[in-house]
Amino acid sequence: MSEAAPATRRRTRGGGGGAARRADRTAVRLEVAKYIERNIPNFEVLTEEALEIIENNAETILEEIGVHFPDNPGALKRWADAGADVDGERVRIPRGLARELIKTAPSEYIQHARNPERNVRVGGNSMVLAPVYGPPFVRDVNGGRRYATMADFQKMVKLTYMSKWLHHSGGTVCEPTDIAVNKRHLDMLYAHMTLSDKPYMGSVTAPERAEDSVRMSEILFGESIANKTVMTSLININSPLTFDEIMMGAMEVYAKNNQACIVSPFIVGGAMAPVSVAGTLAQVMAEGLAGVAYNQLCNPGAPVIFGAFVTSIDMNSGAPTFGTPEASKILYGAGQLARRLGLPFRSGGALCGSKLPDAQAAYETANTLNAALLGGVNFCLHAAGWLEGGLVTSFEKFVMDADQLGVLHSMAKGVDMSENGQALDAVREVGPGGHYLGCAHTQANFKDSFWKSQLLDYKPFETWADEGSKDTMQLASERVERMMGEYTQPPIDPAVDEALQAYMTERKASEPDSFV
Amino acid sequence: MSEAAPATRRRTRGGGGGAARRADRTAVRLEVAKYIERNIPNFEVLTEEALEIIENNAETILEEIGVHFPDNPGALKRWADAGADVDGERVRIPRGLARELIKTAPSEYIQHARNPERNVRVGGNSMVLAPVYGPPFVRDVNGGRRYATMADFQKMVKLTYMSKWLHHSGGTVCEPTDIAVNKRHLDMLYAHMTLSDKPYMGSVTAPERAEDSVRMSEILFGESIANKTVMTSLININSPLTFDEIMMGAMEVYAKNNQACIVSPFIVGGAMAPVSVAGTLAQVMAEGLAGVAYNQLCNPGAPVIFGAFVTSIDMNSGAPTFGTPEASKILYGAGQLARRLGLPFRSGGALCGSKLPDAQAAYETANTLNAALLGGVNFCLHAAGWLEGGLVTSFEKFVMDADQLGVLHSMAKGVDMSENGQALDAVREVGPGGHYLGCAHTQANFKDSFWKSQLLDYKPFETWADEGSKDTMQLASERVERMMGEYTQPPIDPAVDEALQAYMTERKASEPDSFV
Repeated sequence: MSEAAPATRRRTRGGGGGAARRADRTAVRLEVAKYIERNIPNFEVLTEEALEIIENNAETILEEIGVHFPDNPGALKRWADAGADVDGERVRIPRGLARELIKTAPSEYIQHARNPERNVRVGGNSMVLAPVYGPPFVRDVNGGRRYATMADFQKMVKLTYMSKWLHHSGGTVCEPTDIAVNKRHLDMLYAHMTLSDKPYMGSVTAPERAEDSVRMSEILFGESIANKTVMTSLININSPLTFDEIMMGAMEVYAKNNQACIVSPFIVGGAMAPVSVAGTLAQVMAEGLAGVAYNQLCNPGAPVIFGAFVTSIDMNSGAPTFGTPEASKILYGAGQLARRLGLPFRSGGALCGSKLPDAQAAYETANTLNAALLGGVNFCLHAAGWLEGGLVTSFEKFVMDADQLGVLHSMAKGVDMSENGQALDAVREVGPGGHYLGCAHTQANFKDSFWKSQLLDYKPFETWADEGSKDTMQLASERVERMMGEYTQPPIDPAVDEALQAYMTERKASEPDSFV
Repeated sequence: MSEAAPATRRRTRGGGGGAARRADRTAVRLEVAKYIERNIPNFEVLTEEALEIIENNAETILEEIGVHFPDNPGALKRWADAGADVDGERVRIPRGLARELIKTAPSEYIQHARNPERNVRVGGNSMVLAPVYGPPFVRDVNGGRRYATMADFQKMVKLTYMSKWLHHSGGTVCEPTDIAVNKRHLDMLYAHMTLSDKPYMGSVTAPERAEDSVRMSEILFGESIANKTVMTSLININSPLTFDEIMMGAMEVYAKNNQACIVSPFIVGGAMAPVSVAGTLAQVMAEGLAGVAYNQLCNPGAPVIFGAFVTSIDMNSGAPTFGTPEASKILYGAGQLARRLGLPFRSGGALCGSKLPDAQAAYETANTLNAALLGGVNFCLHAAGWLEGGLVTSFEKFVMDADQLGVLHSMAKGVDMSENGQALDAVREVGPGGHYLGCAHTQANFKDSFWKSQLLDYKPFETWADEGSKDTMQLASERVERMMGEYTQPPIDPAVDEALQAYMTERKASEPDSFV
């Protein structure tokens, strides 16, 4: 696997001699890893028999109970034309029909970035990592917890751009609450398009905002995007079994324009699905089948991802819980179901319920990230920066998580079984009682042998204590500041930038601000 | 799987009415889970071809390079008699000989506890969890980092006794540095034997201390233990390829007495083994084969575990690093090798390099604990309380880790595919757009459906802030104090207690204190 695209950039500084050399050594270099290509097996928690039971139950749910498409006559007509039993807004899907309809969906697709080196492949053995999506709040050590603003949004886009192990700029990295609800999507898209050159997500909060996303993308890419997927956007299902008209409206726009959608149940188990793993999986599969099938009814062949965002619940407080064994089992099982359908799979993320980026946050996050890697996730939203059940985007947790994503890259490579990897000559050279630090094999290989954290503390205790006994949160805070100091904007054609701004100005002038 | 033995104990308190009811509700109840019995597959990172290469390389190492048994003429004689090529203290083992010798080792065994409900099965699909082993320091929020004492040791034994998800009392849960080196093993054993009723480990720091462990165990169990394994003790290999006379001397004592040993390479990759995963695995296998074979030469049929304690290294500082992808790959691979040999497997633990029980500690720990579960570990030492690369036993981290071990238990159960687990009637009852919180299936199942943390914070943000915005370390500190307040000693026959004390008194009087 070619791990890092050779796009090293350095911030040049004035002054020569020692100062320049020191600056060179300490400069943050912009290395961007290629998306993960797994060279390890998937972990599968369900037997063949269990899979067949769940698949059968999903078909029973679709046929007998059906799904709900409210306020969407167009969708009801499409379903009726396709052979479903439409009763009011309830759509009952005959056994096998959804499975037949999804056959046109591609098993993988390329999402293009404006910098072609940042293109990602979604599906198969790939895993694409994108930052947190959706929080109305941000938190950092200095400012505490507060409503997010456009400045916070831009900061997150910059941090993601600079993070080696994130392949994707994401979407609503936080909600810029200081911009009108009906206009903020323009500013968010503009930030992704101009402050980063990684692929991004489109707006889904209204069909016309999805149209804006398509129009701005056409400006950015300088061409029609009908044959070029440049967005992957998040379409949540209103579980259980409900496909609301706003999300479906956005999906219709994207599908017709050949842009990718993640069709994803959003489930807190015990509230939006049964308290059991097998029951939840049957519902997830029914919802995924119906959603992907509807996507293909809108445009056969459009790229679409089978998603599963599923957490468990604390039955005392009703709070969603993360990093739990139930959530992991559902992730593993949903991955198996998606692969059997031949669809790209979205799940996982740096999910946690903790209020702070502390030990709780890290246990919960690591449990989920490990499951995401081993469970075969192809598109991993929320892979860095998620805090407090998704209410908060944490800058410190972002850099902590982003560092851990390097672990996934290295794990996914599997074991090097070349002669050099076998290292038998090293054992011969060193022999019983010796040490390997200076042997030829170590000298030749040590630079690339071990994953190396850019954040965690490996210092001797005394050094660490002398330097102020910093915890991970403090180290992360310093890293955030250092990265922001090193940020330089990727170049963009000034004419494109002007055209994007002109489009936004015109659109913003066309309607009054709304904050609801 | 029967998850919790019904040994609920409550601390009774004076006063009736409301106070008593409140005390009853808040009392720490002593539930002890049965050891884990996996109902999920193992994750396997090595292909059949890779396994054969590594096995072949291990045999090449044994045959061509050999292993070192210094200052141990008895061992050299045993090896020579068995057909090895003994050259000075170097033992070269003909291809296939070690593999032949280990055939007498059992694939699993029962370690008996003085309370038979606490017996554990080691091997097969089981996973037994034991606390941290070896740190000279302890740390807590109030006292900071300091040398460990016998009081700290006793506190750890009590906390382990009270922890539902720990099946084993462990061994050197911290080094009681206030007791003479040549006598502290007596106090440590006495603490395990009397403050807990879970199974424990014996002393390995000198052959005569292993003999003391056997004698005291005979007193505790009131019988010969020649046909009853009551200890599992840790025999580290001095990697690379060296089997020092003290550890081998202790192992000889345990093997002859039919007590179990963990034969375990102790490897910081890049220092004590090659920097590559495949090279390290070949060495681990060679060392494990030689160690287990020697164990069987001492007493064919003695219970013995194939161990792998392997970390990676930070090549800048030389510090061992934990929770890394290289360490996980070696764990997964070593598990596959152990299973192909038909031996119980030891690896993993709550390993981390962090100085504090913070996010770094938790990421590293969760990475390792997840790998331990999915990698098929049968005996997991260091499963709770490990901090700072094993230099420190942390009370707060102990309760954090112990809580996460519940995740492993639940994960290991796999997916309930019963009719009730499938929950199709719940989906029928709720239908599109409804919610499951009140449905019949939820009411019938919610108490057992989700793993529930005894530590982590799930409160609404406002409640959490009003209560002081506590982080996980603070919550853990409070839990430690609460558990210590609730501790009651398990009953023990006073005559046995007296006999143990008499043995200790006699042994302590027989030689002067030594602190080296």
